[in-house]
Amino acid sequence: MSEVNVAVLGCGTVGSQVVRLLQEQSSELAARAGAHLNLIGVAVRNVAAAREVEISPALLTQDATALISRADIVIELIGGIEPARTYILEAFAAGASVVTGNKALLAAHGPELYEAAARANVDLYYEAAVAGAVPVVYGLRESLSGDQITAVLGIVNGTTNYILDEMTTKGLTFEAALAQAQALGYAEADPTADVEGYDAAAKCAILASLAFHSRVCLDDVHVQGIRHITAEDIASATRAGFVVKLIATARRRPKGIEAFVAPALVPTNHPLAGVHGPFNAVVIEAEAADRLMFYGRGAGGAPTASAVLSDVVAAAAHRVDGGHAPRELIYADLPVLSPGATISSFQVQLLVHDEVGVLTEVTGIFARHGVSIGSVWQEEAPGEKHATAHSHLVVRTHAATQSDLQATIEELTQAEFVAGVHSVIRVEES
Amino acid sequence: MSEVNVAVLGCGTVGSQVVRLLQEQSSELAARAGAHLNLIGVAVRNVAAAREVEISPALLTQDATALISRADIVIELIGGIEPARTYILEAFAAGASVVTGNKALLAAHGPELYEAAARANVDLYYEAAVAGAVPVVYGLRESLSGDQITAVLGIVNGTTNYILDEMTTKGLTFEAALAQAQALGYAEADPTADVEGYDAAAKCAILASLAFHSRVCLDDVHVQGIRHITAEDIASATRAGFVVKLIATARRRPKGIEAFVAPALVPTNHPLAGVHGPFNAVVIEAEAADRLMFYGRGAGGAPTASAVLSDVVAAAAHRVDGGHAPRELIYADLPVLSPGATISSFQVQLLVHDEVGVLTEVTGIFARHGVSIGSVWQEEAPGEKHATAHSHLVVRTHAATQSDLQATIEELTQAEFVAGVHSVIRVEES
Repeated sequence: MSEVNVAVLGCGTVGSQVVRLLQEQSSELAARAGAHLNLIGVAVRNVAAAREVEISPALLTQDATALISRADIVIELIGGIEPARTYILEAFAAGASVVTGNKALLAAHGPELYEAAARANVDLYYEAAVAGAVPVVYGLRESLSGDQITAVLGIVNGTTNYILDEMTTKGLTFEAALAQAQALGYAEADPTADVEGYDAAAKCAILASLAFHSRVCLDDVHVQGIRHITAEDIASATRAGFVVKLIATARRRPKGIEAFVAPALVPTNHPLAGVHGPFNAVVIEAEAADRLMFYGRGAGGAPTASAVLSDVVAAAAHRVDGGHAPRELIYADLPVLSPGATISSFQVQLLVHDEVGVLTEVTGIFARHGVSIGSVWQEEAPGEKHATAHSHLVVRTHAATQSDLQATIEELTQAEFVAGVHSVIRVEES
Repeated sequence: MSEVNVAVLGCGTVGSQVVRLLQEQSSELAARAGAHLNLIGVAVRNVAAAREVEISPALLTQDATALISRADIVIELIGGIEPARTYILEAFAAGASVVTGNKALLAAHGPELYEAAARANVDLYYEAAVAGAVPVVYGLRESLSGDQITAVLGIVNGTTNYILDEMTTKGLTFEAALAQAQALGYAEADPTADVEGYDAAAKCAILASLAFHSRVCLDDVHVQGIRHITAEDIASATRAGFVVKLIATARRRPKGIEAFVAPALVPTNHPLAGVHGPFNAVVIEAEAADRLMFYGRGAGGAPTASAVLSDVVAAAAHRVDGGHAPRELIYADLPVLSPGATISSFQVQLLVHDEVGVLTEVTGIFARHGVSIGSVWQEEAPGEKHATAHSHLVVRTHAATQSDLQATIEELTQAEFVAGVHSVIRVEES
């Protein structure tokens, strides 16, 4: 049986599980790849550091470049832009295929790396970069290759999904739910990358680029996090038959691609509504296939290692039998729309003075900016009944551009009869 | 650009959509496959028959064998065992790859066909054979190739899922829900294949074979349909926080593979509980990845055609660039367990005489057959309160073999204090 030399760069939570599985499942992996996967080394910053799994000291090295030069497949699990990018380019130059889980690097330099791999006639695989074990990269790259994708909607950040879930099921405030997530190790001490949506945005860029065969980078993705979501927003959503989720959206419109991350009201009968806690899920809408969903664990050493190893098996089979991974040719090269041009339905919650004619004034402002209203109703927060001379109005719009909606909100905020705009949130269709 | 000659056998609901998409999306498909997909002909029984899509008369032929001899890729959408099997073997003999959606053929002769394809060094793809557009064959064959699958649980028959859904949401009887499904065209005039579980069993055989690299045929799959499910079973499940679903199960146990189709109580927080109407979904449990789910449309011309075309793109790329589909080597060759040896939790509903000591007698019978009880409670059907000298008992067991459970039921049925065993149903864990 042929042999394929595999090098691992980085030995953290995922890397150590990859090393474990490569050793424990050696014969199964060989049967599937058609070649023995020969682990030739693990590059780490400090060979003396403690490890989560047992690794023969002879395999550990601090010289990644020398290790790469001997490999057929390089598994990059260092993360971040540099030195990961340099190592990957070194691997391509040496004729090795690369498997990576590096979302930051792909969101910043994906198209360049795809092209470098194609030029070197080697594979670049990155299932683990988006949504852990969920095989959505596979889905977009291969299983929908006979169809036209129209939209991708994902819950791709487990930390924010856990926080929103706790707010929903336990009535916690954002701050309390975040503190609990930190205490349990689900959120980092500095939770910015998760709660502000940046982690989801990197994944959104990768998904949009894959789905639409176009160049979408992190900076193209409009981001809104969940820090401003209140317990009352959640309670009000529950009353109306919605859950609040942080959704990464990539959608093809006639003039280009929408790519944004924002909290949204999701109807409880939508498949994404049932995705709880640390699970991730990605809905793909395509012309012929209609709606598909891929669901699974979005993080964790073993689930992510499973995704890495399936990529390694595919890359190894190509070393032995020929063929290659689909090339991400950016052949469509569609433009990315500005945030203002993105289209959604919205829900706006207002506090208005309780006067005759206020409803006409409010709806008139929406109409003036070309924002069509689907429904409007008055809602009294529990305990507030008759306590004030104000009414809570909830307005749900039809599809409108973000800029028309923004202009509407600005005029509402200025209006004399409006005491405050409480919340503005996107609404997903069921 | 290279050309790949594609022949379509059969032009029904799916075939006509495949022909439409091959023509309409010609340039997109070429970009992804790296070759122009040249439709060289469509074999039909009667060239004069009316078609759902416009097809140039020059493409239609009644001579499938002659068409196959000129093809690089043969798309088999005739269904049934013969002549489909002969045509596929003719294609392999002529050096052509095959894409099929033929679940009956694969469930009966899958391993032989996989081996014939491998010997001819061509591809056999069959994403459309299981769960329409849902890419679960892909998931099992490729995206979990770096992991050990422990179980596959699927809702793979839309007709029964629709019937159970209508019974749940509208309180219909089985007969009324079936009549409605027939009126809407979701169920056939003779609904046997769907409601008795045979359609799901064919898919179960394919899934089990793929998941465990073993030879599992239709006859190995133990089947129970949904005809005996009553409105009261559904109402009682709802009260207890469950929904009733027809589940195809393939599970690896220490001594072999379980493969069966049976209705089951599914907890409402299980990802399969939210799969409604015509949608299908398959949960895959794997050692490292934990639980994944693939969800989408299980039938219909366009969704199924999407699955067919993704297979065609993959097969075409291999014609151009080398490489091949994963070979389904039956290397593990695990035995399939007899139905009696399969293990589940069960729920048993009994009508017992309302006497002192009955509970002790009932639980004693379970214990005597080694069936451990998880919980037992008395339930009064609405309107029945105090109307009889009988009590309804509901017993939920821990995991037990089907044969131990069967022996328990037989003794219960004979017991003097038991007026009747109303229902026995499997229970999925959340």
